[in-house]
Amino acid sequence: MSEILILNGPNLNRLGNREPGIYGSASYDDLVQFVQDAGEAVGRTVEVRQTNDEGEMIDWLHEAADLETPVVLNPGAWGHYSYALRDACAMLTAPLVEVHISNIHAREAFRHHSVISPVARGVIAGLGVEGYADAIQAIVRFTA
Amino acid sequence: MSEILILNGPNLNRLGNREPGIYGSASYDDLVQFVQDAGEAVGRTVEVRQTNDEGEMIDWLHEAADLETPVVLNPGAWGHYSYALRDACAMLTAPLVEVHISNIHAREAFRHHSVISPVARGVIAGLGVEGYADAIQAIVRFTA
Amino acid sequence: MSEILILNGPNLNRLGNREPGIYGSASYDDLVQFVQDAGEAVGRTVEVRQTNDEGEMIDWLHEAADLETPVVLNPGAWGHYSYALRDACAMLTAPLVEVHISNIHAREAFRHHSVISPVARGVIAGLGVEGYADAIQAIVRFTA
Amino acid sequence: MSEILILNGPNLNRLGNREPGIYGSASYDDLVQFVQDAGEAVGRTVEVRQTNDEGEMIDWLHEAADLETPVVLNPGAWGHYSYALRDACAMLTAPLVEVHISNIHAREAFRHHSVISPVARGVIAGLGVEGYADAIQAIVRFTA
Amino acid sequence: MSEILILNGPNLNRLGNREPGIYGSASYDDLVQFVQDAGEAVGRTVEVRQTNDEGEMIDWLHEAADLETPVVLNPGAWGHYSYALRDACAMLTAPLVEVHISNIHAREAFRHHSVISPVARGVIAGLGVEGYADAIQAIVRFTA
Amino acid sequence: MSEILILNGPNLNRLGNREPGIYGSASYDDLVQFVQDAGEAVGRTVEVRQTNDEGEMIDWLHEAADLETPVVLNPGAWGHYSYALRDACAMLTAPLVEVHISNIHAREAFRHHSVISPVARGVIAGLGVEGYADAIQAIVRFTA
Amino acid sequence: MSEILILNGPNLNRLGNREPGIYGSASYDDLVQFVQDAGEAVGRTVEVRQTNDEGEMIDWLHEAADLETPVVLNPGAWGHYSYALRDACAMLTAPLVEVHISNIHAREAFRHHSVISPVARGVIAGLGVEGYADAIQAIVRFTA
Amino acid sequence: MSEILILNGPNLNRLGNREPGIYGSASYDDLVQFVQDAGEAVGRTVEVRQTNDEGEMIDWLHEAADLETPVVLNPGAWGHYSYALRDACAMLTAPLVEVHISNIHAREAFRHHSVISPVARGVIAGLGVEGYADAIQAIVRFTA
Amino acid sequence: MSEILILNGPNLNRLGNREPGIYGSASYDDLVQFVQDAGEAVGRTVEVRQTNDEGEMIDWLHEAADLETPVVLNPGAWGHYSYALRDACAMLTAPLVEVHISNIHAREAFRHHSVISPVARGVIAGLGVEGYADAIQAIVRFTA
Amino acid sequence: MSEILILNGPNLNRLGNREPGIYGSASYDDLVQFVQDAGEAVGRTVEVRQTNDEGEMIDWLHEAADLETPVVLNPGAWGHYSYALRDACAMLTAPLVEVHISNIHAREAFRHHSVISPVARGVIAGLGVEGYADAIQAIVRFTA
Amino acid sequence: MSEILILNGPNLNRLGNREPGIYGSASYDDLVQFVQDAGEAVGRTVEVRQTNDEGEMIDWLHEAADLETPVVLNPGAWGHYSYALRDACAMLTAPLVEVHISNIHAREAFRHHSVISPVARGVIAGLGVEGYADAIQAIVRFTA
Amino acid sequence: MSEILILNGPNLNRLGNREPGIYGSASYDDLVQFVQDAGEAVGRTVEVRQTNDEGEMIDWLHEAADLETPVVLNPGAWGHYSYALRDACAMLTAPLVEVHISNIHAREAFRHHSVISPVARGVIAGLGVEGYADAIQAIVRFTA
Repeated sequence: MSEILILNGPNLNRLGNREPGIYGSASYDDLVQFVQDAGEAVGRTVEVRQTNDEGEMIDWLHEAADLETPVVLNPGAWGHYSYALRDACAMLTAPLVEVHISNIHAREAFRHHSVISPVARGVIAGLGVEGYADAIQAIVRFTA
Repeated sequence: MSEILILNGPNLNRLGNREPGIYGSASYDDLVQFVQDAGEAVGRTVEVRQTNDEGEMIDWLHEAADLETPVVLNPGAWGHYSYALRDACAMLTAPLVEVHISNIHAREAFRHHSVISPVARGVIAGLGVEGYADAIQAIVRFTA
Repeated sequence: MSEILILNGPNLNRLGNREPGIYGSASYDDLVQFVQDAGEAVGRTVEVRQTNDEGEMIDWLHEAADLETPVVLNPGAWGHYSYALRDACAMLTAPLVEVHISNIHAREAFRHHSVISPVARGVIAGLGVEGYADAIQAIVRFTA
Repeated sequence: MSEILILNGPNLNRLGNREPGIYGSASYDDLVQFVQDAGEAVGRTVEVRQTNDEGEMIDWLHEAADLETPVVLNPGAWGHYSYALRDACAMLTAPLVEVHISNIHAREAFRHHSVISPVARGVIAGLGVEGYADAIQAIVRFTA
Repeated sequence: MSEILILNGPNLNRLGNREPGIYGSASYDDLVQFVQDAGEAVGRTVEVRQTNDEGEMIDWLHEAADLETPVVLNPGAWGHYSYALRDACAMLTAPLVEVHISNIHAREAFRHHSVISPVARGVIAGLGVEGYADAIQAIVRFTA
Repeated sequence: MSEILILNGPNLNRLGNREPGIYGSASYDDLVQFVQDAGEAVGRTVEVRQTNDEGEMIDWLHEAADLETPVVLNPGAWGHYSYALRDACAMLTAPLVEVHISNIHAREAFRHHSVISPVARGVIAGLGVEGYADAIQAIVRFTA
Repeated sequence: MSEILILNGPNLNRLGNREPGIYGSASYDDLVQFVQDAGEAVGRTVEVRQTNDEGEMIDWLHEAADLETPVVLNPGAWGHYSYALRDACAMLTAPLVEVHISNIHAREAFRHHSVISPVARGVIAGLGVEGYADAIQAIVRFTA
Repeated sequence: MSEILILNGPNLNRLGNREPGIYGSASYDDLVQFVQDAGEAVGRTVEVRQTNDEGEMIDWLHEAADLETPVVLNPGAWGHYSYALRDACAMLTAPLVEVHISNIHAREAFRHHSVISPVARGVIAGLGVEGYADAIQAIVRFTA
Repeated sequence: MSEILILNGPNLNRLGNREPGIYGSASYDDLVQFVQDAGEAVGRTVEVRQTNDEGEMIDWLHEAADLETPVVLNPGAWGHYSYALRDACAMLTAPLVEVHISNIHAREAFRHHSVISPVARGVIAGLGVEGYADAIQAIVRFTA
Repeated sequence: MSEILILNGPNLNRLGNREPGIYGSASYDDLVQFVQDAGEAVGRTVEVRQTNDEGEMIDWLHEAADLETPVVLNPGAWGHYSYALRDACAMLTAPLVEVHISNIHAREAFRHHSVISPVARGVIAGLGVEGYADAIQAIVRFTA
Repeated sequence: MSEILILNGPNLNRLGNREPGIYGSASYDDLVQFVQDAGEAVGRTVEVRQTNDEGEMIDWLHEAADLETPVVLNPGAWGHYSYALRDACAMLTAPLVEVHISNIHAREAFRHHSVISPVARGVIAGLGVEGYADAIQAIVRFTA
Repeated sequence: MSEILILNGPNLNRLGNREPGIYGSASYDDLVQFVQDAGEAVGRTVEVRQTNDEGEMIDWLHEAADLETPVVLNPGAWGHYSYALRDACAMLTAPLVEVHISNIHAREAFRHHSVISPVARGVIAGLGVEGYADAIQAIVRFTA
């Protein structure tokens, strides 16, 4: 496993097709490239994954817990209800940073609350795909 | 892909076995046959799918979004909490009609609210399996 | 009395003048004509009425209860608070289908809840004036 | 005007046809006769009215306010939302007793709260049509 | 045991000393006398008890359940929270009528809700001590 | 129709009889005279109407919508629940100013919220009958 | 005092008479016998008590706290509101297991929440009187 | 009866055994001694009582009401739900001061609200057993 | 299929690694062994499964419904939101017992409510892995 | 001090720069001029002040209380939370009229409630800067 | 800095002018004198300050934190919403006692909750200005 | 004014003294130095200010609005209630990034909601003082 795991939840594979006014015009492939570059810039290998399957995401988090790998997680809409995901995050043994591309606090009411945030170390929202780079840098600092 | 996609969520494969007083005595196979006949009646090919796996349902919705296929969705109980599904529905590029076989407003309180409805074009509840036929006709009108 | 009674609540007589973006451009007269045609198409006589007077609507529902006439009801904004109307609907002896022209779930929060729905057999929202035709067909099926 | 006014709200004219398990088998005519007998038994003339029209009920309450006539009011479902009725009740100059035939506290949640009760002198629920007689007797005591 | 049991909850022994503006000037002894007279008037022996001890009240209700004795209960403030009392009331085998001397709906918000009412047959509030007489008459009717 | 329509809801015909501590001692006739004088003072004909009938009020609002007449509306207690009235107000094509004679925010909690206010242009409360004159002047400015 | 104390709250002495569909047909004496047998089966003396008096129950809990006796508690309806009981439970020095004969989560909403559960070690609901035996076995394990 | 009555509710007899981190190490006997000394210091005889029985506490409050004795009340957990106790407190004819040894506002949410406080003259929380002395002094001032 | 099916939801495969203070030190393999032994002890074959995939869990429940196999279900965090799982549980034809290893009522607020409990026959929480044995015994009794 | 004090709260000094679609294009200087003209028109000297400092606003209100000066207050966003300001307003000895330039009821939910309104004599919202003139006229009437 | 700091929040400088029925007739100067005397009585120098400026109050609390000075704080209405003040209080290094002159629990609902109380050591309400003396004595005890 | 304005709200001047477990051990001077270095690193002049005075903060935001200066804002506890601050933020003409040193979502419930976030472009929480550097970089990107 890479040194930092970047996990993306449901619908993020559609980036670029989805409400560009909110999410920007970068495609999911652009996101992957951007994040890998950001890892390289700080000298860490990063691995970027995406799934629409809650069970697969939980398995990845268990894997990260076993290997003590830090995680950057964009839970997508699961962040608003999946306590199963929260429990998996709470098991992590290295730092977790939660990232949202858009500013969830400026959108529908149901997006204002994340059940993941209380078990994350930090939360970044609204900084676009660059938020992933900020999260990677934070993890580098936390694990220095 | 067919001209209209009919997507059924969790537990609908058990139709006929489940609370006949509420859902009627038609089996899931009957439902499939009925819906295909309804499509034929209005001269459209329809494809009926069912899954208990939220990730698979999201993938199907992405597929429909890519192909601009209209969708008739019975979200089952996911309709009451799956914001991930809602986000996938919001990406659709052709009309979406939500269908519930039973009248969810006459049942337990948690069934009165659907997180899908605000991103659907129309909603039909309590008309039995025939509600799918009404939804197909509506889609024919919307896409005429 | 006709074989099916179509009852419209407050402000529906203004159809066509009212927020065409939401309700479409058909006038109330168009609605009446459309519904009568829809009845004819399934071989039933239908009668379309409209009132802004809660008491008159209740009287019409009592009349339908006495004659065992099925009802298609668009309660308009009364649906959000008139328990008096609900009680009258609960007395009906033949099927009741509730219709909303617009998708009330995609509008202001107060429109998401109908006190009529729990005592209706089925509910249709957001399918435009064609929703009345679907309701008439449903009643034909229910009373077959 | 009679010495005591007995006012009945929406749907009460359907008594006997409506959920006999809840309301009993007496018809509205039986109710009228019963209440008139009850008035006679205590030596007071009573007048029994019923309307499904909120405006008419308000007018009657104004009339009672002008003539200082005591009122027995069964507000029906208006009791759960009609603040207009409450304001009219608050203007009464003689005692008001609120009556419900069924025990509204043992039914749906929306029936547990009456906006009329805070401006009534007393409230009787669940004693059947005899509750009107009890209310008349109470008014006789209050105005003795 | 008498034919009808009249049970009074906490603080009712202080009647006459307590907020006469709300409860009237009759003392508890006056209440007992009044209720016994009311029983006599309808040819029934009644027994009036009062306790400030929830456990004793529950025992009395069990006694009434065993003997199939109808009960008039003024639960006092227990009515707002004692589910233990409610469970005991639900066990009664003869009719229960709940009485409040004052109109609890016109007082503090916590008094607007009684956990006893849903398991009573009828409820009387605000008719003063005469409400007990009305309750006794109702029980005579229910057990005729 | 006059140049400005002044519409008064339920119970306002009782002005002067109703809680003078809250509403002042002016009678409804005084109100009519005052408002007509206020119109005259700014050179506009005004017409003052009152009804206790929700349906009639809705009809008047439709009339104003057709004629593009500005409206001053005192909805009385309907303002707290009548979404039917709100929908009719939302159809107005000229400015609407909502007026309450008393300061509804200093009274019972249910009066603090008006479902009309969000679709009005302005709201005046607690300025007495003179609030109507202020509303007329505002309308003169809005339609200048 | 016995090695394990079995405490039963209000109305449990009526077992067998109370809603057999919910609580089963075993009488309270059967319960006592069953529980004593269950204690014997695991080689512990148990003492079974019941009271409808909150104060007596609190005293028993204090006694258990002093003697470090483990407790099986069926709080009955006190469990839904008696914070006094909760405080007494929190003082226990040996394990506490809460037992409900019926499945409180499948009944009225007020039964879904127990103020005792947060200070118990474990909770058993819906397993019938046998739940007491399971609780005794759990205590044997906890105190092994 | 003494000049000031000091009444302690449920579980306070266990002081010293109960969560010393919250309540301090003083025993209930220490509390009694401390309070009597505090009374002596201001030249008043005080009587300290404790009960776990709501009914007994209500009786004591009635006694104090009759004799116009001021009361210092530590309601313990009853303070969070016993409206019966509140009603008894509201009957007092001399000042009532409510005391809590710990700062209830810094503990579980259910402890933040006391139904007694609105009918007390003053409230003291978190000052330890010395809060009783402060309450006695306040009563001396109030009754000077 | 075995005679009893033991189903474990998300993250339970991590037992032993996860918050040992809450869940104990037994690993998931220990759990499986313990449960199989418990089945053997009562002469029933049991099968223990675990999944992080909601869809797979629903399929297993359908399988149990078809074969009328009783189920012991630890829903993990799904219990707090998965109405899809609830619907599948409601279809079971043999008894269902819900088990939680920790006492969910003593943890975060979101864990206090299970959407599964209303459709289970019984619920066990906080008894550790031994709770599974208690559940198996209960099922033996229910199906005797 | 002038005869009428016009007090403006936070951000009102930015008028004209701030959301012209909501607040209009008049600058704060225009507002000052307009209000002074309005005072002159009714023959009263007015003084217009603005502050972003809650403490300064409270001091001004104290000053007005001492001098019995009537106040027109636009509390800006403080109106939604500053109970300190409310307390200062409640001390005023001459009439207070609250003014909002925009219709706060047609904007975000947090703007629908003002903690100042219950202690004001009247409230004006949505009439633009002219609302200040209406408020001045009202004060002239109140203090005539 | 003095040995104990007495800090008073908004509007307390108006004491004596403000609702004497609630706050008594003592002026703010009387309060200052009284508190200084109370300090002298226990041999401590006290310093009494008042401000209507939240920022100044926070500065004073920082000063007390630096010097480890105990604080008696009457937060006035800030206590109901100022989390900024709460954070400053939480930084104190010596004991904090919160004082309210009136019994805030017997007034408007918004006054029943103080965001300061959870970070205070003790709270005194309703004992009049003498509550300050009690608070000073408590601080003497806490810092003995 | 500098190219980027860094604004810190109440109590942040106490950094290093305040709960180091939550905020880290860096002093406020360290924060200033760190932020200035971070600005230098990206070639921008930054200016760091702190105030405990809401009015001063609002003035600074107006200044930034006039000069179109981007802002990094740590609102401290004002973020949870100061709508006045929110309105000032909404007036900014260049990007605003909100920063919290600690993860507010993992602390008390009142800290989970920020009234500033809906009008910010992005939000960073829990990344320590380095969060300011991330915010500065984001602003560089937004204004590139």
